Amino acid sequence: MFRTKTCGELRLANVGESVTLSGWVQRTRKMGGMTFADLRDRYGITQLVFDESTDAALCEQANRLGREWVIQVVGEVSERQSKNQNLPTGDIEIIVRQLVVLNESAVPPFTIEEQSDGGDDLRMKYRYLDLRRPCVRKNLELRHKFAFEVRRYLDQQGFMEIETPVLVNSTPEGARDFVVPSRMNPGQFYALPQSPQTLKQLLMVAGMDRYFQIVKCFRDEDLRADRQPEFTQIDCEMSFVEQEDILQMFEGMSRHLFKTILNIDIPTLPRMTWADAMKYYGSDKPDTRFDMKFVELMDVLKGTGEFSVFNEAEYIGGICCEGQAVYTRKQLDQLTDFVRRPQIGAKGLVYARVGEDGTLKSSVDKFYSPEVLENLKNAMQAKPGDLILIISGPDTLKARKQLCELRLEMGSRMGLRPKDKFSCLWVIDFPMYEWSDEEQRLMAMHHPFTSPKPEDIPLLDTDPASVRANAYDMVINGVEVGGGSIRIHDAKLQQKIFEILGFTPEQAQQKFGFLMNAFKYGAPPHGGLAYGLDRFVSLFAQLDSIRDCIAFPKNNSGRDVMLDAPGFIDQSQLDELCLQIDLPKE
Amino acid sequence: MFRTKTCGELRLANVGESVTLSGWVQRTRKMGGMTFADLRDRYGITQLVFDESTDAALCEQANRLGREWVIQVVGEVSERQSKNQNLPTGDIEIIVRQLVVLNESAVPPFTIEEQSDGGDDLRMKYRYLDLRRPCVRKNLELRHKFAFEVRRYLDQQGFMEIETPVLVNSTPEGARDFVVPSRMNPGQFYALPQSPQTLKQLLMVAGMDRYFQIVKCFRDEDLRADRQPEFTQIDCEMSFVEQEDILQMFEGMSRHLFKTILNIDIPTLPRMTWADAMKYYGSDKPDTRFDMKFVELMDVLKGTGEFSVFNEAEYIGGICCEGQAVYTRKQLDQLTDFVRRPQIGAKGLVYARVGEDGTLKSSVDKFYSPEVLENLKNAMQAKPGDLILIISGPDTLKARKQLCELRLEMGSRMGLRPKDKFSCLWVIDFPMYEWSDEEQRLMAMHHPFTSPKPEDIPLLDTDPASVRANAYDMVINGVEVGGGSIRIHDAKLQQKIFEILGFTPEQAQQKFGFLMNAFKYGAPPHGGLAYGLDRFVSLFAQLDSIRDCIAFPKNNSGRDVMLDAPGFIDQSQLDELCLQIDLPKE
Repeated sequence: MFRTKTCGELRLANVGESVTLSGWVQRTRKMGGMTFADLRDRYGITQLVFDESTDAALCEQANRLGREWVIQVVGEVSERQSKNQNLPTGDIEIIVRQLVVLNESAVPPFTIEEQSDGGDDLRMKYRYLDLRRPCVRKNLELRHKFAFEVRRYLDQQGFMEIETPVLVNSTPEGARDFVVPSRMNPGQFYALPQSPQTLKQLLMVAGMDRYFQIVKCFRDEDLRADRQPEFTQIDCEMSFVEQEDILQMFEGMSRHLFKTILNIDIPTLPRMTWADAMKYYGSDKPDTRFDMKFVELMDVLKGTGEFSVFNEAEYIGGICCEGQAVYTRKQLDQLTDFVRRPQIGAKGLVYARVGEDGTLKSSVDKFYSPEVLENLKNAMQAKPGDLILIISGPDTLKARKQLCELRLEMGSRMGLRPKDKFSCLWVIDFPMYEWSDEEQRLMAMHHPFTSPKPEDIPLLDTDPASVRANAYDMVINGVEVGGGSIRIHDAKLQQKIFEILGFTPEQAQQKFGFLMNAFKYGAPPHGGLAYGLDRFVSLFAQLDSIRDCIAFPKNNSGRDVMLDAPGFIDQSQLDELCLQIDLPKE
Repeated sequence: MFRTKTCGELRLANVGESVTLSGWVQRTRKMGGMTFADLRDRYGITQLVFDESTDAALCEQANRLGREWVIQVVGEVSERQSKNQNLPTGDIEIIVRQLVVLNESAVPPFTIEEQSDGGDDLRMKYRYLDLRRPCVRKNLELRHKFAFEVRRYLDQQGFMEIETPVLVNSTPEGARDFVVPSRMNPGQFYALPQSPQTLKQLLMVAGMDRYFQIVKCFRDEDLRADRQPEFTQIDCEMSFVEQEDILQMFEGMSRHLFKTILNIDIPTLPRMTWADAMKYYGSDKPDTRFDMKFVELMDVLKGTGEFSVFNEAEYIGGICCEGQAVYTRKQLDQLTDFVRRPQIGAKGLVYARVGEDGTLKSSVDKFYSPEVLENLKNAMQAKPGDLILIISGPDTLKARKQLCELRLEMGSRMGLRPKDKFSCLWVIDFPMYEWSDEEQRLMAMHHPFTSPKPEDIPLLDTDPASVRANAYDMVINGVEVGGGSIRIHDAKLQQKIFEILGFTPEQAQQKFGFLMNAFKYGAPPHGGLAYGLDRFVSLFAQLDSIRDCIAFPKNNSGRDVMLDAPGFIDQSQLDELCLQIDLPKE
């Protein structure tokens, strides 16, 4: 028996009890004839006291303890003279009468405290020490609870968690697959799943009715800051449902999660069409923690004055920043630099301050009459003291995206995006297709199994780009946490969609044959969605990076620096796999 | 809204209600002017009635329905004239007034009914149809519930489920790894984990205290009948524990699972030492549903008569089969053939029947005096009507294994191994090492991190083969469902164990460096175990093969015949990975 209590549970009520604790030495300090040590485990910190006058040898032993040594103590719970209000166990301490060193520790490369941080490289190399820090550990505790509550909700709703295979075949659309050479089938490869999309559709054909899985997925992409080669999805699918059934079911799940984990009652999720999201926020994942909607100003500013930039624009839009007329010229120049950065790519920024007297002072004053400026103020519903910021450009989509970045920047500057405030919504009615400049063809916006809205099916022949899909995303605070669609269950409609995507029947058969074959045997109407668990948990934990809710994340080169993976393998193993490495010549 | 009720929930109390159901047409039949159809979904089967005299067109539509068509009906719940006691919905039927065909179906390659079975190849190719059969679906439902209850129990006990990475590095001991070429690190490979063993130990170093994970693991082994290249473990680890703490915790989990899933109260698990298991059952996973323990007969039969086989044996052991003296000569010859099969490898079998008068008639009568035969009868505690079966051989371990197979065979023949009876136990005190003829060295019986029993540590220097480990297996009905050990947390002891296993310090550092490094920073005492989920669920579901509780299993060549995986990949993909395929010349 290594302990009778943990380091987090003793209170005044326990005073007088004899207890055994085990844990790590957080720090020690000598004061007069006493030695104090903070003993830490997953559950908390408890103060230990060694009294030289009672047991000099024991106290001497305590003085030799180093940081992060693992010890076991036996002692009596005692009320503290000077209580520590910041610690749940701060009312008590342990008068130690027996000390066993279970393991010594080398001096750790950084101290294990809330605010300590050895820098990202060191943290990742010594992740097992980084994880000892309560702030990091709490993220994993939240993740555990989150996943458990997902399962509890879905189980109650009659969903079955069904494991789908990890060794599958290469998927035709989407990102690059990780592949696994098969020794028993030389020259052939498994692929790791980017998602269990087709497998969950097969489970619907199999009559499983309500499926979910919290499952690892894999994408061999060049990693951006917040991408991981392996990530976790909450993958769900239902049969005999329409879009409304799915929105209700998963709105319920979000409500359950917010309530049980954060004790927050979220309101009914607003639903915004993709068209409106683009029009008012310039994004399909609008951050609705704050308003500051776009106002389109083509009628007001195009052709109504001598400003050629606006006169040539395909789009002119503005946002009204409440009370920000105090922005100095220098601050406005910074904003202009911000929108001109290559990642954003605007040509410039037009501003207008509304004075206390209600008059507008703008960087384009000289081009417009007072009437036009008055129209601008009215269109923007700007009040005295407000700042109007305007972006324009020859491409509506691009200009809106620039204005979106500007809006988010202003929201951040104005403190309108606090991490502890949550604003959830559904974005619905996505287009079926988006044009790919690279591929010079229409591409499926979600995936090729997404069902068009029934009323838009006739448009497939005449104007496919305008067809809307039965597709939906759940967006929280500007982050797409999940998304999905109603799937096509009709073989003829599926064939037509493939044609529009540019697949010949032979190509479609080759790429999706096993799914198409299954669909011949009575596929039910079905649909579903998938959440990114890492992102969803990150939002709940108010993290900047998904890495902080992953026990052992990989870096931007796809390496686990702690394990030193990937690594080289033996020639004999390559031979068994019938593989040769062929590195490019330097 | 595709349905207001499922096909499994309507009862007499619902009579008169108007309902909408959706599902698959199991079968249709015409009787007089009526057409009946069985409509099936995940939840059950409901009988539909179409009345020609009420609506001839509708009835005609129903007559065109084929097997496995997906339909939606609207109708009224009505009491059946002839009730079907075998069906929970057997008291009612639906008088249909509206029928919509949601999807047609091609004629399925086998019928979707309990007892139908297209043979293994067809079942696997059309697994999505096979899964529609209730008997197969029920296994997945049980698996879902099983996993959920595991999580519920462990969550209540303060365990955190923590996801460990799937893309890791190659593990040094154990079976062959599946590897994944890294595009971003050319020439290097990830490995898929055979188990998260080292990662969970790192989580203990990280202070996570109580960890578990239901996790996919991978082994690239030549597949035997009941092995899968990917399988699922319930992986668990605890800090600050001794063996007793772990046995208690996971005995509690088994009790929880048996109670919540099968409504069975299991008794306290007996604990059997490995030595006793080998002595009395010839196996480290004894089937204790029945007794029939081995009796060692060296004292009784070696050197007490003229039978040279026994006189030269290193081991002679027998089992007493109650009431089986009725076995004919032919049946005994069959048993002899059974133990002589190459998989078992015994040279022969000696038997003795106890007659109703208490006298022994044996195949070796002529070699032994009546006194010796009387001694044999007494040693075996054989009663009139019993059959004694004896195996001997020059190698104790091998002879015991042969006798074990014979005991299991007799248990099966005598009906002592019913699948709905469960006998659980712990096997403890495993040896640390076993001799490998192949490697000509001692090998770790569990893995190299297993801790020896403290009292046996001195033997490490003098007689390592006799050292017992703090290792334990949970055995149910002769199946090892889980096993684990207390780990070594002391670096010096670990070093010694590596030496005994024949690793130089350099080799140990190269193979286990990241774990050894972590252990320098205050590793707590820890231990754990892992269950094979597939096996555990198979036992609960009384299945012959783990495949039947896996949604999409692979065949013995590691192929998923439904997905047709693995498969060939594009040259461009190989180029990106800097790989060439080098198939052996025919």
